[in-house]
Amino acid sequence: MTYLEKLENAVQKSQSTLCVGLDPNLNLLPDVTREKIGSTSELVFEFCSSVIDVTQDHCAAYKPNLAFFEALGKKGLKVLDAVLDHIPDDKIIIADAKRGDISSTAEHYKKAFFDKFNVDAITLNPLMGFETLDAFSDDESKGVYVLALTSNPGADDFLKKPFEGFDMMAEYIACSLFERSVNTEAHLGMVVGATQSAEARSVIEYHSKASLLIPGVGAQGGSLEELANTLAGHEGIPLINSSRGIIYAGSDQNNWKDHVSKAAKTLKENLSIITQNYVG
Amino acid sequence: MTYLEKLENAVQKSQSTLCVGLDPNLNLLPDVTREKIGSTSELVFEFCSSVIDVTQDHCAAYKPNLAFFEALGKKGLKVLDAVLDHIPDDKIIIADAKRGDISSTAEHYKKAFFDKFNVDAITLNPLMGFETLDAFSDDESKGVYVLALTSNPGADDFLKKPFEGFDMMAEYIACSLFERSVNTEAHLGMVVGATQSAEARSVIEYHSKASLLIPGVGAQGGSLEELANTLAGHEGIPLINSSRGIIYAGSDQNNWKDHVSKAAKTLKENLSIITQNYVG
Repeated sequence: MTYLEKLENAVQKSQSTLCVGLDPNLNLLPDVTREKIGSTSELVFEFCSSVIDVTQDHCAAYKPNLAFFEALGKKGLKVLDAVLDHIPDDKIIIADAKRGDISSTAEHYKKAFFDKFNVDAITLNPLMGFETLDAFSDDESKGVYVLALTSNPGADDFLKKPFEGFDMMAEYIACSLFERSVNTEAHLGMVVGATQSAEARSVIEYHSKASLLIPGVGAQGGSLEELANTLAGHEGIPLINSSRGIIYAGSDQNNWKDHVSKAAKTLKENLSIITQNYVG
Repeated sequence: MTYLEKLENAVQKSQSTLCVGLDPNLNLLPDVTREKIGSTSELVFEFCSSVIDVTQDHCAAYKPNLAFFEALGKKGLKVLDAVLDHIPDDKIIIADAKRGDISSTAEHYKKAFFDKFNVDAITLNPLMGFETLDAFSDDESKGVYVLALTSNPGADDFLKKPFEGFDMMAEYIACSLFERSVNTEAHLGMVVGATQSAEARSVIEYHSKASLLIPGVGAQGGSLEELANTLAGHEGIPLINSSRGIIYAGSDQNNWKDHVSKAAKTLKENLSIITQNYVG
């Protein structure tokens, strides 16, 4: 099965394009989890597995952010591995790693994420050149999401500046990915920020069949109506990510899991104006 | 003590600007280590710690490459931690991670590498904007090496292309780091590839006080005489990295450690035309 087929199945089955970002920040975890649990590693596992339990009816995908697991130190990847094991098989798992390196280093990142942790897709940073994608190109069952346009202020330093005859470097990236076609549309995606809709549209138009990973919804702002307009006609399947807006929705509440579940359910429903274009 | 002071001490004490890259590739490890050791993790630790034992008289720094440890799966960071513990205190440790992300994600990468693994410096990728450096800016005891110019063919896709009025994006990065001065020269460095000397010189001239991490020596080629000319007059301290050229120098030999030691000693001596400008 190609990555695209697995993605289609996950969206169809859940009737959702929601991706829940797993960013377990120790300073923001619900107080109630702290009382019951011993070590930091156990606390993070308990939190993440609870979030997965109460959101899985509402999302197509989970996106663990590597930084938050590496911040646990030498036990970090063991906790990540346990959390990944807890995610149902019919969900897409995207390792938000933003790796970008060459030759044998890239091969080893591939080995880490695709072989050892067996995630479905990874986010990649192309600054060192498109050859950084080559190691991830030969297996269509695994997806890559290449950074194209982000929604942070620093996007003005590189990604939104004119480059190589394009109005924005992000367009150059999208166009190059399309022309290069080393990674086929069966497993190629782009990361495109949601908060700048006109700019996002000009980027995705260069590669209308690329899957999309769209951060910037929820805690980072961004209007869903605008996003629906931006995506109108785009053939590649979008996953819309929310991290903090969902997983910390009930941090100061005893019934925090209910708040997390409700936040995911509400966002899934609000995303239906987008999802309806990609489900049967 | 600032990062720069620790770097000066490491170079002075070892009389060397050599950095040994720790890239433990399971396919390239000496056969003799396999016979004695049990698990893959033990094998990697045994290999890395042996390399450290026989090279420490010849180098100022070690650069573990995160990909090769993450490729070990859930035990990967535990092995990294043990390897880091084996490195003498007077050496510089640079985590070759090439991370680049924003806000709380960047804060958590900082926590991982500077607090948990307690390395001296990290390599960073600035594509998402210079705000990706902010989390690493407030602690002058820890260094950052920002990707500027790399020596792989893919450098032609971004880093060597004209950008913002500069002949190369790499120059824009160097100039921006200088003008921005959020990270002071007490702990700011740049990664500048060694194999394109004229281009490397035009980059480092934009920030003559930045420390440098120079890959591309040894297995990746690059002439040391040319490099010495490139660096002439540069005030920031360079570390010249070699990974495969040293650590696999004796892979098919019974006395592989002697070959590793000799390779490090030889390169240290050949680098003396550079090192002499930075030691008392």
